[in-house]
Amino acid sequence: MREGFKDLQGGLFASVHKADVGNAVSDLMKRGVDLMCWADPFFPDLVIPQNVKQSVIDSIDKGMATHYTMPIGNSDLKQAIAVKLKEDNHMNVDPDRNILITPGSDSGLMFAMMPFIGEGDEVLIPAPSYPSNFLNPKLLGGIAVPVPLKEENNYQIEIEEFEKRVSPQTKMVLLTNPNNPTSTVLRRDSLEKIATFVIEHDLVLVVDQAFEDAIYDDIEFVSIATLPGMWERTISVFSISKGMGLSGFRVGYLVADDKIIDVLYGCTVNVIGATNTSAQIGAIAAMKDRSFVKEYNAIFDRRRKAVYEIMNSIPGVSMAMPESGFLSWVNISKLGTSAEISKYLIDHANVVVNEGTPYGVGGEGYIRIVHGCYKDDNVLYAALERIKQALIQLDIDKGVAAHG
Amino acid sequence: MREGFKDLQGGLFASVHKADVGNAVSDLMKRGVDLMCWADPFFPDLVIPQNVKQSVIDSIDKGMATHYTMPIGNSDLKQAIAVKLKEDNHMNVDPDRNILITPGSDSGLMFAMMPFIGEGDEVLIPAPSYPSNFLNPKLLGGIAVPVPLKEENNYQIEIEEFEKRVSPQTKMVLLTNPNNPTSTVLRRDSLEKIATFVIEHDLVLVVDQAFEDAIYDDIEFVSIATLPGMWERTISVFSISKGMGLSGFRVGYLVADDKIIDVLYGCTVNVIGATNTSAQIGAIAAMKDRSFVKEYNAIFDRRRKAVYEIMNSIPGVSMAMPESGFLSWVNISKLGTSAEISKYLIDHANVVVNEGTPYGVGGEGYIRIVHGCYKDDNVLYAALERIKQALIQLDIDKGVAAHG
Repeated sequence: MREGFKDLQGGLFASVHKADVGNAVSDLMKRGVDLMCWADPFFPDLVIPQNVKQSVIDSIDKGMATHYTMPIGNSDLKQAIAVKLKEDNHMNVDPDRNILITPGSDSGLMFAMMPFIGEGDEVLIPAPSYPSNFLNPKLLGGIAVPVPLKEENNYQIEIEEFEKRVSPQTKMVLLTNPNNPTSTVLRRDSLEKIATFVIEHDLVLVVDQAFEDAIYDDIEFVSIATLPGMWERTISVFSISKGMGLSGFRVGYLVADDKIIDVLYGCTVNVIGATNTSAQIGAIAAMKDRSFVKEYNAIFDRRRKAVYEIMNSIPGVSMAMPESGFLSWVNISKLGTSAEISKYLIDHANVVVNEGTPYGVGGEGYIRIVHGCYKDDNVLYAALERIKQALIQLDIDKGVAAHG
Repeated sequence: MREGFKDLQGGLFASVHKADVGNAVSDLMKRGVDLMCWADPFFPDLVIPQNVKQSVIDSIDKGMATHYTMPIGNSDLKQAIAVKLKEDNHMNVDPDRNILITPGSDSGLMFAMMPFIGEGDEVLIPAPSYPSNFLNPKLLGGIAVPVPLKEENNYQIEIEEFEKRVSPQTKMVLLTNPNNPTSTVLRRDSLEKIATFVIEHDLVLVVDQAFEDAIYDDIEFVSIATLPGMWERTISVFSISKGMGLSGFRVGYLVADDKIIDVLYGCTVNVIGATNTSAQIGAIAAMKDRSFVKEYNAIFDRRRKAVYEIMNSIPGVSMAMPESGFLSWVNISKLGTSAEISKYLIDHANVVVNEGTPYGVGGEGYIRIVHGCYKDDNVLYAALERIKQALIQLDIDKGVAAHG
């Protein structure tokens, strides 16, 4: 067996309560535990825009649902995505030559890396970030090199940390922007520093923009592929799972220069197969009328402020105001380790949150709370209240506030 | 860029008329050409079992359509698959421990190979077979080693051909059974020879059984994982695309021993992401009442006999009776090369078939005709008749029959 596949966490024999592997989650759901650990908008409630729903049903009732869409993706969907890219990302692309549809952005991320990363190749990854980022290079025979970001610096880029870790084996920088779990939006000057670094060292950059749709407080969002010299060396990975709340559809897309897409087109069948036909038809409807995204964002904006108030009102607990999406990155280090607090909250608040440690260097001492779940605010606020009461009790039990 | 990704065929800049890459197919469809090149049952006609349709629509109307299913797959679907595996494959498996749902069997095939194949590893692949089989090892840094099968031997296994090619770098045998494009069903003694070989050389075996559902003339079908000593070293790859005609759903599944599934579970999110939620719910309905598969098979059985009659009535053209599915592997070598005849049939019969050459060693001189397409027999037979008339004319033009 290849080295990268040995000692994987979260498999069949693992006892971890991780969110996205094994049967742990379904077992917890059966127990009636509230899930605030899965970045799936309004999960598990029924929420779907009417026009998206109708398009999908029509494709099943009268259309091509049972038939393959070409592996590289539905051409009409690419047209609609090109319009969105122009309007939202300021990217001008040829839909037929620069866009590839993938069955979700997870396999899309792996696919984007595969042509470039092999035996011994190193990938620089700001940390904390999405757990897959650290495992993906390893699965390809390469090496993940975490580059620590600091909370006190608002998780922005310190390019000296990249310079310290670059080597002749470095082939790629892998970014998540906005970041998961910290929700940080990398500012233009952070991205410009990375761009200069990537160009100077002749690297490829893969950027996961799954959380780009909801950015708050008028923070400028910059797609790094639009910076000078970056288009020809960037693969941008997008998803309709987060901003559009269409996680179960499994539709993502890659955007890149002709020369990169040429290679990916040539092995799309092999690596990702094709994407579900009806879901692509639904995605067209979603792309063409994105007004529902604004409605969702208003909900998430209200919620992040509530979570911020609640968490910061707990002695020994703190968090920064989320800059994007529906994730809160909560410092619980005064109360215990990530694992301890997560376990404690299952037992004492009947809520599952994410441990911080899988998010890499800088994750210990934090938990991630997904406040995009449940359609009914009251369910969410009730769960937050239980978290608050449980942590206040823990604080008292440990006598932290007195010392803190 | 990794070696395996250089010089890929079928990318953006390719002019090939291949079936499953680029926009070639959609361009031809717009021209009104009949497609007999895509192994997608009844394409492009509307065919879906009523109970499958209703289940999918309910999942969108009232259910979890927009939400993730766990990456390792829907638990109820696995239960239903386990029943099917017992009844149809004589495989007794634990649904939670031995089955992994994938977004189609293409990414499933790649995923099955990934833990085992890296830099310089060799994979033995009977040829001709599914084109992806030859490219997949290369994309992983390995080497595809074709093992030629012979038409005169009904494409059964000659194990000396394997023995000749085995080396210390050999890690895997990759089988397609029943085979695509030849439709051959490997007989029990062929599979026993491979099993002995795989065990003796301590290899892993990946078998793609996408075409297992329609086997004709009471030929025994054996799932190689059921042979003694093979369960613990076999990954069986299945699909609902072919036998169930649900290609657009993109649902496949892997079946393997606990120890292998443990590793795959540990990186499912990374490599394949999760599978479309509604499609998995539709797949449950399909698995629970598989009577429609028998109806489809009756149609394909009738058609293969018609194609056999028609093709063998053309001077200079011959084919064996298909043993499975809805593919015909037609020897046109007396009339021209695969490329010449395929091109000729687009121009003179308004029909796209597959060139034989992408199917590897032994593919030159053949074309693959998909006779599972179109719901209306008359459309199919009209296309076959145009192929016949065009090839008879070509035969006359070339004077082959007189010499042949």
